[in-house]
Formats: sequence, structure tokens, C-alpha cells
Amino acid sequence: MRIVREIEGVRRTVGQARAKGNSIGFFPTLGGMHEGHLSMIRRARADNDFVVVSIFVNPTQFGVDEDLDAYPRQLEADAGMAEECGGDLVFAPSEAEMYAADAATYVEVEGLTDVLCGAYRPGHFRGVTTVVAKLLNIVCPDRAYFGEKDFQQLLVIRRMARDLNMPVEIVGCPTVREADGLAMSSRNTYLSAEQRQAAPALYEALTLGAEAVRNGCTAGEAELMVRDYIENTSVLRVQYARALHPETLAEPDYIGPPILLAVAVFAGDTRLIDNIVIRE
Amino acid sequence: MRIVREIEGVRRTVGQARAKGNSIGFFPTLGGMHEGHLSMIRRARADNDFVVVSIFVNPTQFGVDEDLDAYPRQLEADAGMAEECGGDLVFAPSEAEMYAADAATYVEVEGLTDVLCGAYRPGHFRGVTTVVAKLLNIVCPDRAYFGEKDFQQLLVIRRMARDLNMPVEIVGCPTVREADGLAMSSRNTYLSAEQRQAAPALYEALTLGAEAVRNGCTAGEAELMVRDYIENTSVLRVQYARALHPETLAEPDYIGPPILLAVAVFAGDTRLIDNIVIRE
Repeated sequence: MRIVREIEGVRRTVGQARAKGNSIGFFPTLGGMHEGHLSMIRRARADNDFVVVSIFVNPTQFGVDEDLDAYPRQLEADAGMAEECGGDLVFAPSEAEMYAADAATYVEVEGLTDVLCGAYRPGHFRGVTTVVAKLLNIVCPDRAYFGEKDFQQLLVIRRMARDLNMPVEIVGCPTVREADGLAMSSRNTYLSAEQRQAAPALYEALTLGAEAVRNGCTAGEAELMVRDYIENTSVLRVQYARALHPETLAEPDYIGPPILLAVAVFAGDTRLIDNIVIRE
Repeated sequence: MRIVREIEGVRRTVGQARAKGNSIGFFPTLGGMHEGHLSMIRRARADNDFVVVSIFVNPTQFGVDEDLDAYPRQLEADAGMAEECGGDLVFAPSEAEMYAADAATYVEVEGLTDVLCGAYRPGHFRGVTTVVAKLLNIVCPDRAYFGEKDFQQLLVIRRMARDLNMPVEIVGCPTVREADGLAMSSRNTYLSAEQRQAAPALYEALTLGAEAVRNGCTAGEAELMVRDYIENTSVLRVQYARALHPETLAEPDYIGPPILLAVAVFAGDTRLIDNIVIRE
């Protein structure tokens, strides 16, 4: 697997692939690869002739009190997995390669970023949209892949790409879960045995909440049900449990689908998120 | 001359040109074409195989009290001139084609936009950077052309393109002047005979200020000299007259070049800007 550290190297290699008529798929990651990532690389492989995977723990999307330093860094192992799943090139830039000392440009999506994770992680989505805009400009892919586990991120990136007329298709990929329902996440490795045992409560609660929405509960009732179920574990503390419209993230003024049920919880210092979309 | 109204039409035509191996030059304008614009189309023609000119009076870069409605609109005449100078395609979208009703994404360059025009036109540069990012994503040119008359705009666009790794070369083009030194501008058509007669004072003042900088005056002294010379006309009112570093727009802590001398003045309701760069 070629690990390319420099932007010019990526441009050159991708440009050569494109000149041969290859379609380009791109999957940006923070590394810490698990089966959720691998399923997305396989998907990109199936859709495209040439697949670029970036591994960059982007500092501008982490808050000052967040887990930037603890975030799993395992570049060689990640690159090996990316290769096995059909990746053609891993782009793993340094911070200095990505950000000039006097970098001053930001891409911001308003509205969609005011709620859910955006309400609790100020600056997070600005960091995400800015770095994704940069990566898309470096790779110039035909398709870029984002996981539905970070559902708000997927909406925000889609809106950015549409609003800025980016010449790329944004593809959302389903959440991959452990056998007990826990959504796969690089942060699951932080969990103690007790926390890990409690963690499936997120998906159990979302499943119950979804059933309640289908049975005519209001958004507010579903939110309370999800919150109570999770807090009953006593190991997990809910940051938010929201039932919102799955495209606008507005509070629904209707009963029933479509509803996005989304939660963020803390297990000790570890923050976990999950969501489920109830469609008509 | 083909006038294309829709984004997909531009993408298709430019894509065909690129598929034939043509290089693409792009010149975004607000219309109201004069010799300054035409010189830039000729420059784009000389540098590239295929030249796109956009004509779009972008509402998001005008303030509420500014001259959006009065801005000259003369699409057919502009397109004819663009063709004569070697333009291959004019892109003239509607507002609805450019902005979805729920558009929520902005590109912002911080710092550089705090001074000069940015200090007096809140939101202006955010409107400019956002629409230019969109246009660049639609046209995907190899080179894009911006006039040095809007010197701060050129710096801001350059910074945006660099910070966001946009795959485009930003080319600055020299200001074109009338015989008496007045910088060409679409807004010159607003001037009364008396205002028009006074207007060359901008460039005269900048020329004097530049000489003063070369002779060892401080930035502050040069600013005062420029301001006094223009206000002596009694027809022109100075909004700002600044002497700043021509790349960072910081206040210089040194004597002599490099210095950007930049002015904005009002002749009645008409706002005129001009600048001169004193290099080593």
C-alpha cells in the first residue's frame, strides 16, 4: 500500500488514474479503523476504479477538552486494512502539510450545525466542513463516502457540497454494529468492561423509541423514553436524546415518521453517539 | 456567443472542452463590462484554450444600503464584448440557479477581511468568497482571473484558494486606467460631470503617496497625504486611506516598501476605490 504524505503526491497519482479514465472514490477517516470503515472502503471499491483513503486526525474538529491526544493512531495497521479492502492509495498528511501557519479560511454550514452534536461541540462542524472541503479539493473524487453513524455530519457535508456546487457525489453508508447492536466506533476501545457491557443500551433505546414513534408517540415522548432507558443503566449519562426531522433537523410539528432519533451519551469520559432513522 | 443559464450546461460544455485536452480559463464578473474587463478576457484567452466568463450580480456581496439594484445590467452587450475578446462561453445564471432557498453554507477568510473595504462593508467578502468558491466548483478552471483594482479581494481569493487547496491558479491582472489616471470601474458611469472631473484625484493622490513612501515617509504620513489631497477636491469624501503590508494587510512597523496604498472615496453616493503597490 502506498502511503502518501504530501498533497502534490496525491494530486499527481490521482491525476494519473483519472487520465486513464478511472473513476475516483474517496473515503476520509481519522484512522482507528474498524469493520465500519472497512465496509465503506469495500463499498468505494465496488463503485469506483480507484479508491483513496485519507487518514488524518484533524485537530480543528476537536474541542480543547476532547480526546485529540488519546485518539487511536495506528497508521501502518490502518493502511494495511485499507489495502486489503481495496484501497489504492492512503493519504496521511501531517498537520503542517494540511494547515499553513497563517491559514484563515473556514467553511461553515449554518442552521444544521446548531443542534445535536453541534450544540455541544462548538467549532466541531466548522473544523469538519473545512477539512473535508480541503480534502475534496485535493483528491477531486467522483464520489465521497460518509457514515450514517455520524448522521448530522453526513447531512452537513451533503448540504455543503450542494450549496458550494462541489463536483462530487456524497454517499451515505449504513452504520455497522457489533453482534449486540453497539455501533462500531474507534472510541469503543476506550470503554471499560462494565461500560462496554452497558453500551448496547444506546441501540436498544433507539429501537424502542423508533417503535414508539411508529405507534404514534410524539417526538418529545420518544426522546424521554430513549433518555430514561439509557440512564437506567446507571453507567451511561445522556448528553442529548433528540427526535428531529431527518433532513432539516427541525423539531417535528407532526406525529410519526420521518424522524431521526439521535443520542449522545457519556460512559465515564468516553462520548458515544448513535442514531436511527424512522422512514415512512 | 453562447449564453448559458444553467449550471449543468456549463459543466457539460466545459467538460467537453476539457476532455479534448483544452486548458480552461475563468473570469468571474458582475457584468457592466469596460476595458478593464476586456483586457482580462484577452489575458485569459492568451493563457488558456477555452475561456469562460461569468456575469452574475451576486446579491450576497452587496450590503442593504448599497447599489445592488442600480448596478449596470447589460447582458447582451457584455456577452458580445466577451466574445470579441475571445470568450468561449458566458455563464449568466439567475439568483435561483445559484442559491437554493435553504442555502446555508459560507466560506469565510478571517483576518484579511477585517480592514479596508471589509471594515466598511460587513458581509461583503463572505459573499464574495462564497460565490467565487461556488463558481470555481462549477467551472473547474485551471486559472481564474481577478483584477488588482480590487486588491483586497484578490488577496482574499488567493488566500481562500490556498487554504482550501483549490486546484486552480489565481491570476492577478493590472488595473486599467483612463487617460487621466482614473481606474476603470462599472461605477464610473454613476458619476456626474463634476464628480468625473474630480475623480482622477484618487490616482494622483496614490502616486504622490507612493513617492512619499519611497522617500522615507512613514505609513501614517503617506495616509494623511493621500487623504488631504483627495479631500482638497471638495467633491470627494475619503472613507479610508490606508498604507498596509501588501500581503498581510498588517500595519507596517517599518519605513519604505513594500506598501499597499489603498483608498475608498465617496463622490456623492458613488463609492470608488483604487490602490497602488510600492514594491522594493
